[in-house]
Amino acid sequence: MIATGFTGAWLDRADPVRGDPALLDAALADPRARLMRLENGDPAVDATGAIAWTSLADLEGTPIFLGLDAEQRPYFAETRAGDAAGPARSGALMRMLDAMPPGDAAIFGTVRSVTGWHARNGFCANCGAATAIIRGGWARACPSCGTEHYPRVDPVVIMLAEFEGRALVGRQAAWPAGRYSALVGFVEPGESLEEAVAREVFEEAGVRVSDVRYLASQPWPFPGQLMLAAIGAAESDALTIDAKEIEDAFWVTKADVRAALAGEADAKFLPPPPYAIARTLLEEWAK
Amino acid sequence: MIATGFTGAWLDRADPVRGDPALLDAALADPRARLMRLENGDPAVDATGAIAWTSLADLEGTPIFLGLDAEQRPYFAETRAGDAAGPARSGALMRMLDAMPPGDAAIFGTVRSVTGWHARNGFCANCGAATAIIRGGWARACPSCGTEHYPRVDPVVIMLAEFEGRALVGRQAAWPAGRYSALVGFVEPGESLEEAVAREVFEEAGVRVSDVRYLASQPWPFPGQLMLAAIGAAESDALTIDAKEIEDAFWVTKADVRAALAGEADAKFLPPPPYAIARTLLEEWAK
Ligand SMILES: [Zn+2]
Ligand SMILES: [Zn+2]
Repeated sequence: MIATGFTGAWLDRADPVRGDPALLDAALADPRARLMRLENGDPAVDATGAIAWTSLADLEGTPIFLGLDAEQRPYFAETRAGDAAGPARSGALMRMLDAMPPGDAAIFGTVRSVTGWHARNGFCANCGAATAIIRGGWARACPSCGTEHYPRVDPVVIMLAEFEGRALVGRQAAWPAGRYSALVGFVEPGESLEEAVAREVFEEAGVRVSDVRYLASQPWPFPGQLMLAAIGAAESDALTIDAKEIEDAFWVTKADVRAALAGEADAKFLPPPPYAIARTLLEEWAK
Repeated sequence: MIATGFTGAWLDRADPVRGDPALLDAALADPRARLMRLENGDPAVDATGAIAWTSLADLEGTPIFLGLDAEQRPYFAETRAGDAAGPARSGALMRMLDAMPPGDAAIFGTVRSVTGWHARNGFCANCGAATAIIRGGWARACPSCGTEHYPRVDPVVIMLAEFEGRALVGRQAAWPAGRYSALVGFVEPGESLEEAVAREVFEEAGVRVSDVRYLASQPWPFPGQLMLAAIGAAESDALTIDAKEIEDAFWVTKADVRAALAGEADAKFLPPPPYAIARTLLEEWAK
């Protein structure tokens, strides 16, 4: 399997603990328990770039049970007023992610997704009442209508269209200058992953693709997507750009991609960062 | 690509129409426009088993724009009070799905998912205010805090663990007697598709899997999942069943699966229905 960013967490999620108040209380009472705190959505890191865990003495909000390590030590995060709710990443966080061990980044990503979901979901979508955290931070329950709500994960397709040895990359207007990447879009109700790939490439670039091949996946914690990377065969290289979706798109060769990934001075574009599956997709395609 | 249930819709979703009130009004005014109506979550079908479309003269609720056919004819569904909100399927619907053309089932699935989402999401999860339908039925907006909400699609992994030529099938207590199928579970925040497969097989059956290979996907409209089918290599065939998740599980050979798919009298289990990707997964594995 292909290694992707935000995967490889070194904790067992230990689902039975979430649903058992006695086990949760025991975990919270464990003197070895560790806590990850976020400030404005950013974690604290130590001199090596790893997550700087603290103890439950620092707990201010509602605990979220993250799981157990190989020694059965429990790990927690917390929800607090002021948690980052949206997709915005600070410059400091992006520099942290460049240096963070992958397994730590995976656990941070889980925390960022779950805390962001709580921050955006304090009320019951079914009846409007205020909801309360249950299951060790992994759900919310409505005291009025009884509905239980679980953290949302949005499936997103991210893909390269391929035509005669070249791949299509595009850029959004808000991105850093020179950055190009794979096209991307949300999977909608009533379509498969493969159908979503074909629909999005046509909507954004006017290119019909078929023979969609899944490559790899990653969770993306800004705020909570499951990225599904794929490659599709394009019928033509004629582009019709939808300016509301992307600012520009063009076809690149494998040599172009290798130059971009290597950071060569005359590369045709700047690639996405190492923890983004778009980069993994470009790397695999250019092999 | 592998054909799966609830795919192959013959409508262009025509996303630009959703966001343009003038185009939406024109579609609603088109005398050729067609409407799908659901009663308690079930569609009307004609003598061939196809969707029985009606005209907008029958519209009672709020229209949902489904897309355009090859002649640019617009198609709609509607949200109404009393729409089926949950996963329950009537016996009549299950018989309809056995006979429905795949492209029609795909459009019905889209309608069932979107109408169910509206039925469960009348209020803003961010602030509790009542929300209103926008974008031709493809989103809701909060008049109080301004948040826009989009239909939720839950990614779900469905998988076979494989060990020495045998695959693991299990059953849930609520299923029809004798029915066994692939194991299944929701992808959680902070994990990849492949990690979710490994976690769920271990949680439900106590089996460690690696080398997870994606096979195919389908939308599942009860109420709104994206099913991601995969096969993983098991480290052992020793089972530890989690009775809260599954009632039973056992290992089957390819001959066992072929007998079940063929409906042989002495087959070891009853397989899932043709429109379920679990059956596609069993068919592909047993080839
Ligand atoms: Zn409620
Ligand atoms: Zn609101």
